[in-house]
Amino acid sequence: MREKNKERVLALSGGVGGSKLAFGLSKMLPPDQLTILANTGDDFEHLGFTICPDIDSLLYSLSGINNSKLGWGQKGETWNFLSALERLGGETWFKLGDRDLATHIFRAAKLKEGLSLSEVTMLLADGMGASHRILPMTDQPVRTMIHCELGSLSFQNYFVKERCEPKVKNIKFEGIESAILNPAALDFIEQGLKAVIICPSNPFLSIDPILSLDGVVDAIKKQGCPVVAVSNIIGGAALKGPAAKLMSELGIAESALGVAKYYQERYPGLLTDFVLDQKDKHLENDIAMLDLSTSVTQTLMNSSERKKKLAADILNLVSKALSF
Amino acid sequence: MREKNKERVLALSGGVGGSKLAFGLSKMLPPDQLTILANTGDDFEHLGFTICPDIDSLLYSLSGINNSKLGWGQKGETWNFLSALERLGGETWFKLGDRDLATHIFRAAKLKEGLSLSEVTMLLADGMGASHRILPMTDQPVRTMIHCELGSLSFQNYFVKERCEPKVKNIKFEGIESAILNPAALDFIEQGLKAVIICPSNPFLSIDPILSLDGVVDAIKKQGCPVVAVSNIIGGAALKGPAAKLMSELGIAESALGVAKYYQERYPGLLTDFVLDQKDKHLENDIAMLDLSTSVTQTLMNSSERKKKLAADILNLVSKALSF
Repeated sequence: MREKNKERVLALSGGVGGSKLAFGLSKMLPPDQLTILANTGDDFEHLGFTICPDIDSLLYSLSGINNSKLGWGQKGETWNFLSALERLGGETWFKLGDRDLATHIFRAAKLKEGLSLSEVTMLLADGMGASHRILPMTDQPVRTMIHCELGSLSFQNYFVKERCEPKVKNIKFEGIESAILNPAALDFIEQGLKAVIICPSNPFLSIDPILSLDGVVDAIKKQGCPVVAVSNIIGGAALKGPAAKLMSELGIAESALGVAKYYQERYPGLLTDFVLDQKDKHLENDIAMLDLSTSVTQTLMNSSERKKKLAADILNLVSKALSF
Repeated sequence: MREKNKERVLALSGGVGGSKLAFGLSKMLPPDQLTILANTGDDFEHLGFTICPDIDSLLYSLSGINNSKLGWGQKGETWNFLSALERLGGETWFKLGDRDLATHIFRAAKLKEGLSLSEVTMLLADGMGASHRILPMTDQPVRTMIHCELGSLSFQNYFVKERCEPKVKNIKFEGIESAILNPAALDFIEQGLKAVIICPSNPFLSIDPILSLDGVVDAIKKQGCPVVAVSNIIGGAALKGPAAKLMSELGIAESALGVAKYYQERYPGLLTDFVLDQKDKHLENDIAMLDLSTSVTQTLMNSSERKKKLAADILNLVSKALSF
């Protein structure tokens, strides 16, 4: 039997907020102590490519080639492909940069050769110089479909093309029933964990798809390690993305408390700790009442230093929890 | 029965030399009087795209967005995709520019939707603003394979990746037996032609694939119109591409005379006129001995003016031939 390695941390991530904390964690932990499990529900097919926005955010962030001005894509990006495509009357609503295209074209070619999404992600990480492991939550296609006034839209269609304007009725993760949790992630969990960190990503769009995969919640619970969720809402506003509007349309309070309640109701007994921003300190007692340890800190990550600081705060919190 | 329109010119083109003369012709003739039949033998599959270099040379040239400095691709081109792909360890031997990629991605998406190559070419021409009709020689895939020391290579592999270095044994047009001459081209021919102009393109690589399609030579001969070939060799050197080296490896003299002889032997009774450069005037008598009317002019097209001038010279030649 393998000796269990209790130094290892699993982070669940989707979107830009997730990739920021993942970057911070990657500066605090060596590659063998951190694995990031990425949402693939936002993946979609566009212009013949399978585009994986959440994986790419992680790849770009962890390899230091992310565009921090834009908040997405690569630094030094140019847009000549897009302007040439526009002249041709092609679909330009999804902003594919010239450098970014290399990721999509490389991925499409490798997938066509028969490599799995995990294998391609590893090649991409190698090429970009991201040394911490990024695992797609599954190698089978899962597609987050937004059922709204306009019908059923892929998430990117709803998010980018329709600018989150249509009112949302519900969210479905197409393919989730037949998708299998990435075996490398299961293996990582079962070898022993120090903690699971749920990054400040949208619970419905980024975290639910991961936790909806068969077996992942049970495998994590079985470890009995701290499971820390970081609120993606600060002071009632989602920093990025449509979280707040979605929460309200789905009947959930747009606040850190709403996020904590959602996790506790949807995944009873999973979370041990909840991290909220200083601005939401007034909610701490209510969140603690949900049977969660709470920790108040600065969760806004608008610089590399802040990303590292939040990661350090969370790792300290975990260490303290474990020392009791 | 339709009245025959005898004002119309069919140009056969491949490569850069062909696109230059096609540009010149497009400035001399209105769209309804000129159709350009493009070689597709150079097409190849790369990074998941079907790339059509000869069609694209025509599209870019006729819409005025060609890069005249490079001699290929689009003007104002950038290379950020390629540099990002290089970092990933992708295949970068074929120089895909950022703007150029829009053509390939658009084409691939439309082909996948079920459009024919002809239909996609029309959409591309519309988008770029090329008003003269460019027809792929066929909608079925034909692939020029170079059988050489290294085995069997696609033309672009041989030409770009291997820089024409391997010694050529022979050339095969894979798929030519089952490929059907573009019906729109056949229709254009059968409605009556003033002339056929064989552009100064490589006879083996650019013109042979077109003329190897079942029925095209007979259909042209049936029109009884002037068929003018322009030498792609000036003073013993092919201006662009591997023509001279190939000719020598296939045992044919590297000269305008060699080109004329080749056409006469391969397609007896097809050509009526042969246009050669001033530098090759000493070969005129020998070429005339091949039962060809000859015309000596400046065939080097290193400016827009020269392209138009050569087109005008050829059209004058045709008019004179018809007035006898």
